Amino acid sequence: MTETAPRPTLEAVAARAGVSRATVSRVVNGGDGVRGPLVERVRRAVEELGYVPNQAARSLVTKRHDAVAVVVAEPETRVFADPFFALQLRGISKELTAHDSQLVLLLTEGRADHARVGRYLAGGHVDGALVFSLHLDDPLPELVQRAGVPTVFGGRPGWGEGTRSAVYVDSDNRGGARDAVRHLVGLGRRRIAHITGALDQTSAVDRLDGFRDVMVDAAPGLIAEGDFTPAGGERAMGELLERCPDLDAVFAANDLTASGALRVLRAQGRRVPEDVAVIGFDDMLPVAEQTDPPLTTVRQDIEEMGRLMARLLLRGLRGRGGEPGVGGTPSSVVLPTTLVRRASA
Amino acid sequence: MTETAPRPTLEAVAARAGVSRATVSRVVNGGDGVRGPLVERVRRAVEELGYVPNQAARSLVTKRHDAVAVVVAEPETRVFADPFFALQLRGISKELTAHDSQLVLLLTEGRADHARVGRYLAGGHVDGALVFSLHLDDPLPELVQRAGVPTVFGGRPGWGEGTRSAVYVDSDNRGGARDAVRHLVGLGRRRIAHITGALDQTSAVDRLDGFRDVMVDAAPGLIAEGDFTPAGGERAMGELLERCPDLDAVFAANDLTASGALRVLRAQGRRVPEDVAVIGFDDMLPVAEQTDPPLTTVRQDIEEMGRLMARLLLRGLRGRGGEPGVGGTPSSVVLPTTLVRRASA
Repeated sequence: MTETAPRPTLEAVAARAGVSRATVSRVVNGGDGVRGPLVERVRRAVEELGYVPNQAARSLVTKRHDAVAVVVAEPETRVFADPFFALQLRGISKELTAHDSQLVLLLTEGRADHARVGRYLAGGHVDGALVFSLHLDDPLPELVQRAGVPTVFGGRPGWGEGTRSAVYVDSDNRGGARDAVRHLVGLGRRRIAHITGALDQTSAVDRLDGFRDVMVDAAPGLIAEGDFTPAGGERAMGELLERCPDLDAVFAANDLTASGALRVLRAQGRRVPEDVAVIGFDDMLPVAEQTDPPLTTVRQDIEEMGRLMARLLLRGLRGRGGEPGVGGTPSSVVLPTTLVRRASA
Repeated sequence: MTETAPRPTLEAVAARAGVSRATVSRVVNGGDGVRGPLVERVRRAVEELGYVPNQAARSLVTKRHDAVAVVVAEPETRVFADPFFALQLRGISKELTAHDSQLVLLLTEGRADHARVGRYLAGGHVDGALVFSLHLDDPLPELVQRAGVPTVFGGRPGWGEGTRSAVYVDSDNRGGARDAVRHLVGLGRRRIAHITGALDQTSAVDRLDGFRDVMVDAAPGLIAEGDFTPAGGERAMGELLERCPDLDAVFAANDLTASGALRVLRAQGRRVPEDVAVIGFDDMLPVAEQTDPPLTTVRQDIEEMGRLMARLLLRGLRGRGGEPGVGGTPSSVVLPTTLVRRASA
């Protein structure tokens, strides 16, 4: 433990500057009504003593922390294993840094810890929260609402009381999935399978709906459940090949899933794309370029989603502060996707 | 933005429970002197209304936040690119979760943001801080000390005013490096080169010192500067081969560096280990097992280092609270390393 020198007090600053405690407090907390030369003297004393205002006390007055919490509703291990989260965080980090707001990432081991996250959010440590990767029955949206902090969600929160009026940033998952499956149909494929994502997440449900929009009569055997991981993709691909050995295409719910499916196809001697065409979702680099063969996929701009989440939140916070020229509550945004053609389909 | 319902107040809880405001406050803040049945009534009212105490106000009284900040002195992009950080965070996360303390990861884009991190730390949002991956001239140790939060460092902080009495958790970098180089000598290698880590970090300096302890007369040309990344390892390996084409072994400052060096050796037609033996540092999995050939390396238990950092901090915090049975200020810990033999040396 660093031995902490006694922290300089407001009183010490006042004594050094030769002014009253109240004057120091006004200068430090950005209030008005202090003459220029006095402001200068207080600032110098603050500098010389290395005084840091007690922000817990200060924020009771100013109600601002210049910090935004980010909550990923996944255990810490997944946050670091799936590059999706790093990309979204990168976008968030850039935007918050540009506004000198501190990114506060609240990590958890699992859902059992979400109540503690709720307490931290409610504790007056941040101005707002960005929450992503929600799952069905996740207590987070309600905890966030109870905490009373302004929140923007990453991905449409599909369930739960707290989410009806939620502002979120999402990709057009259903439309992107339709594009992918239509592309496979255009290639002349007829036995098109789908490996879903984790179906307790709206992104997975929306992509499945997009698949069904095009493959209205798809046999149930052509749909296998995955979980957005390479291992899930391997497992599901194995099931599909057992149930429908004559399938000629697979739309996987994300690129990591597709990478697992490709490994199983290769192990079983199926040529891609000649025997089985494969399409992923995300355009996650370098994954999508390094699969064998390189992956045709539906691109969503994950970093931009993070940036937009942060931007909407900050705009909303300024709006609450009654800053001029800023329109009221922001609306949700759904970003378009694009099909990126490589060798696999 | 989620439209936030008005947050239930202390007054509302008091009204519902039929007790005074002061009684609610005492129950909520864990004070004594309230009779059992009243405590029960207040708890029920808190539950029914979903009341969350204003922790900014509360922590002014209790001085506790049940949260610990983690600061990695690297830009967000590196934190997610180098598995070292994920492992250390995993250890920290497990330990904090076991003590119901919230892990608050403060991400930055770079050193320019460290002042903001200092403000957050000083702001009364956390009970303590864990700081790792410090660099020479890094302002963080001083900022942390000014912030007045108890801190444990990951890796020995080698420089700066604030670090003299610092408590840290480190590996025996110098001893581990000596073991690696002695192993190469034992294999009969004589022209042994070293690719350093980022020399503004003590871990890199200590490993270089360990190399020099054994190779007392090493020609300067046999040492090339890297930066702990695969790209740095490639660059340095290229330089070394140009300067000393007859080198017969390389000790790389970490496994990522070694993976880059191996790629260059293969590209230049050198057989490993027949022509050039290679040893890394970390035993980072899966990297060390998936190199070609699999990597002989110096193992340090990175996750355990994270766990220990958190444990030392929490113990120190309890010590400050005057809890019985807990000894005073914790001391620094240096963990031993072990040589793990695979195919590369």
